[in-house]
Amino acid sequence: DRPFVVAGRTLASRLIIGTGKYQSYEDNARALEASGADMITVAVRRVNLSDPSQPRLVDFIDPSKYVFLPNTAGCFTGEDAVRTLRLAREAGGWSLVKLEVLSDPKHLYPDMAETLRATDMLVKEGFDVMVYCSDDPVYARKLEDAGACAIMPLGAPIGSGLGIQNPVNIRLIIEAASVPVIVDAGVGTASDAAVAMELGCDGVLMNTAIAEARDPVRMARAMKHAVIAGREAYLAGRMAKKRYADPSSPLAGLI
Amino acid sequence: DRPFVVAGRTLASRLIIGTGKYQSYEDNARALEASGADMITVAVRRVNLSDPSQPRLVDFIDPSKYVFLPNTAGCFTGEDAVRTLRLAREAGGWSLVKLEVLSDPKHLYPDMAETLRATDMLVKEGFDVMVYCSDDPVYARKLEDAGACAIMPLGAPIGSGLGIQNPVNIRLIIEAASVPVIVDAGVGTASDAAVAMELGCDGVLMNTAIAEARDPVRMARAMKHAVIAGREAYLAGRMAKKRYADPSSPLAGLI
Amino acid sequence: DRPFVVAGRTLASRLIIGTGKYQSYEDNARALEASGADMITVAVRRVNLSDPSQPRLVDFIDPSKYVFLPNTAGCFTGEDAVRTLRLAREAGGWSLVKLEVLSDPKHLYPDMAETLRATDMLVKEGFDVMVYCSDDPVYARKLEDAGACAIMPLGAPIGSGLGIQNPVNIRLIIEAASVPVIVDAGVGTASDAAVAMELGCDGVLMNTAIAEARDPVRMARAMKHAVIAGREAYLAGRMAKKRYADPSSPLAGLI
Amino acid sequence: DRPFVVAGRTLASRLIIGTGKYQSYEDNARALEASGADMITVAVRRVNLSDPSQPRLVDFIDPSKYVFLPNTAGCFTGEDAVRTLRLAREAGGWSLVKLEVLSDPKHLYPDMAETLRATDMLVKEGFDVMVYCSDDPVYARKLEDAGACAIMPLGAPIGSGLGIQNPVNIRLIIEAASVPVIVDAGVGTASDAAVAMELGCDGVLMNTAIAEARDPVRMARAMKHAVIAGREAYLAGRMAKKRYADPSSPLAGLI
Repeated sequence: DRPFVVAGRTLASRLIIGTGKYQSYEDNARALEASGADMITVAVRRVNLSDPSQPRLVDFIDPSKYVFLPNTAGCFTGEDAVRTLRLAREAGGWSLVKLEVLSDPKHLYPDMAETLRATDMLVKEGFDVMVYCSDDPVYARKLEDAGACAIMPLGAPIGSGLGIQNPVNIRLIIEAASVPVIVDAGVGTASDAAVAMELGCDGVLMNTAIAEARDPVRMARAMKHAVIAGREAYLAGRMAKKRYADPSSPLAGLI
Repeated sequence: DRPFVVAGRTLASRLIIGTGKYQSYEDNARALEASGADMITVAVRRVNLSDPSQPRLVDFIDPSKYVFLPNTAGCFTGEDAVRTLRLAREAGGWSLVKLEVLSDPKHLYPDMAETLRATDMLVKEGFDVMVYCSDDPVYARKLEDAGACAIMPLGAPIGSGLGIQNPVNIRLIIEAASVPVIVDAGVGTASDAAVAMELGCDGVLMNTAIAEARDPVRMARAMKHAVIAGREAYLAGRMAKKRYADPSSPLAGLI
Repeated sequence: DRPFVVAGRTLASRLIIGTGKYQSYEDNARALEASGADMITVAVRRVNLSDPSQPRLVDFIDPSKYVFLPNTAGCFTGEDAVRTLRLAREAGGWSLVKLEVLSDPKHLYPDMAETLRATDMLVKEGFDVMVYCSDDPVYARKLEDAGACAIMPLGAPIGSGLGIQNPVNIRLIIEAASVPVIVDAGVGTASDAAVAMELGCDGVLMNTAIAEARDPVRMARAMKHAVIAGREAYLAGRMAKKRYADPSSPLAGLI
Repeated sequence: DRPFVVAGRTLASRLIIGTGKYQSYEDNARALEASGADMITVAVRRVNLSDPSQPRLVDFIDPSKYVFLPNTAGCFTGEDAVRTLRLAREAGGWSLVKLEVLSDPKHLYPDMAETLRATDMLVKEGFDVMVYCSDDPVYARKLEDAGACAIMPLGAPIGSGLGIQNPVNIRLIIEAASVPVIVDAGVGTASDAAVAMELGCDGVLMNTAIAEARDPVRMARAMKHAVIAGREAYLAGRMAKKRYADPSSPLAGLI
């Protein structure tokens, strides 16, 4: 397999996890370790990174061991997102970021016009921008043209666990992209992650599927294996589907 | 996780692979090693086990390291199957066996009436009988009552790679069984195996999905991870599916 | 289209409906009329056919206008089913019957061994036997060989509304059958009925999908159209599926 | 049912068909009649509407009996689309139009930024604009805000026949829309059309599914029934799905 490289950084794992909905930062840290991920995304407007009087994420997850990926969860305009990431860069030095510009809370889909505008602004300010987006291949193309370093189409609404709704679109995006494509949002269980990878994605980002499993650490481990399984199956080249049976052992000429 | 025990034998892996369709016994052995399986099924009417003038499976796969599971591939009557397994027991001392009594070559589905009759005969002769069967929960129950040590419902026609066609039936079989349930036939790629395990199966048996992949060794590795992923996800307890989005980071009270 | 003939009787509609779960016989009659069906199945152990002191089905649905199809709902042994149908024949003169021999109430799947045995008994007694069965193509074949005049595989558990779970099996049954194949059980909404017909079934039988709809009469009308739609689509021969777009209007040579 | 009204015009049928890929205008006319549609969409850059020396569509399909809906098939920029529709209005007086602004020929998805811009231009020029769009609920909202009189999300790539890929998105669009939602593109067979209508769409537009069926007239008839079936099922309110069986006839208290 070729290495998984985003904006010049080589990641050992193709699984990226989040930092929302866990009972505690300690649980989050344990799930992270079990997942094998080396990148973790952080809602910089929500997570306590700096106030030493409160529990801080960095006390449980070491920024020198894991790649922190600041995201703009909760931003509904391009300006809001850009401002948030500027603060993150000033505070933590992070220039590799995940942009999300949301619209209606009912589905939390990105507003693609605003997302593209914000991508453009961030790229001009020197950020490396991974972009949460719809599964529209046309906008995926525009984001890459605007300089996005990774395209992150949603598989289903954030936190829904419905699995990849439109494999056709994900496939079309992958076929046209020359930057990494990472399915972001919608995975509910291990097979969903495997399906995403079998389509040829470069990686998968998930939060709720792990954080809201009955046993998050075990589900993190499941996801680690699922992402490897899906990637290996993609590279191995699956058998053709057949309408009828095909015996493993020839029926003719039996002893 | 509780151990995976079939007829008193504890298996380290929940994946069982086959010995058909490989280019050579050497390729088969390499796929077996990559799969992590410790049980391998052998069509005793097809595979050369004893003639030293020809390549023998046992020269490549060591019966002292792997559990050989003789099967009755190519048998279309109960008597035929029983005769085949008696010979296998005499030749190799194998008493743990996999019964399959086929019907029409078009779909290679088991004839369940004959299969039940043969199970009964074999159990009376002291065999430990793992049984390839349809996904009919009523017959699964009858097989267990007849003394089958494992129920092996098909997911789709042998060699079709169509994936689990009827998850409802597999679930109903699992809910009622007190012996291991192993999906046998129909898996085409890694996510199919994960889906089977997420339903709560105890194991998965496959042949064509590995042997006919472009790179069988890599697909064997994919399947190893897929089976672990599916099992862990089943044990972890997946998140509930939701009709609408559910933010990873609360939208209210942002900094 | 060739006519839909069961045991020598030509039916105008390929939809057959039931008589369970309705609020009243009047509602049942109105749904029947809306459905366009000319055959209606009756659980002879449950429905009042003869006691004039109670509301009788025949006071609402005229047996001279509709084909009554007595069924053995609630029978768990072959003998029980045969006894029930003998009584029905004596009482109403019905010799065209629907056999169901159930097993576990959890799934209400047929016990196929008992079902085959009962088919054999009924055929020998001169009944025309339509048989509720699993979707196992091997048993479908045995039923036809035993003289069943229609094969009625289940699409999903009775009353579940889950839709056709295993289109592969339904297709395999149809390809091999020379008597009508009628999907019986599992339809939940109109598209499910259309899917069944598109597979090439000769008809569909349903009860709960209509009786438990919010508006049963309207759903009966929906099902009438769905069955016609699916049949016509099957006969029309659908377009091939394509992985990429194919413009309706050529893109080259525009005016 | 409430009437199906687009921009003040009441349509008797919820099915809209096309004029591409037919062998002849005569075949097209016969399919139209069988479909029951009263609106037909016309690629004004492709179809001969006015040259009397060549076969003209209007010689076969009477514009006084059917609503002609000029479309911009083959337009890849907003300006191109606007120019095309201005010509159509001058030539035929059509002010109710269907806008499509395409992108990559591989998938023929709309360029949503251009589509929104063109919608805005056309609305300002007094057109009633039905808009072919992606299934992105955010853009569906923007189109409605810009004055589109109908939202026409794609179900799958034009001409692919893959069926509705993302029912979640179609549902989200319907829940938020106050103008008609018409699935446009992707339908392959009758059940696909029924599924679209069961989601609550107001109508379905299709071309290839009919034109490329083996028997287009019969498929047109299938689609007529499928659209009615799906609409009626939606209005009837389907039964709840259940995990286990639910007998049509109570099992207790049998006679």
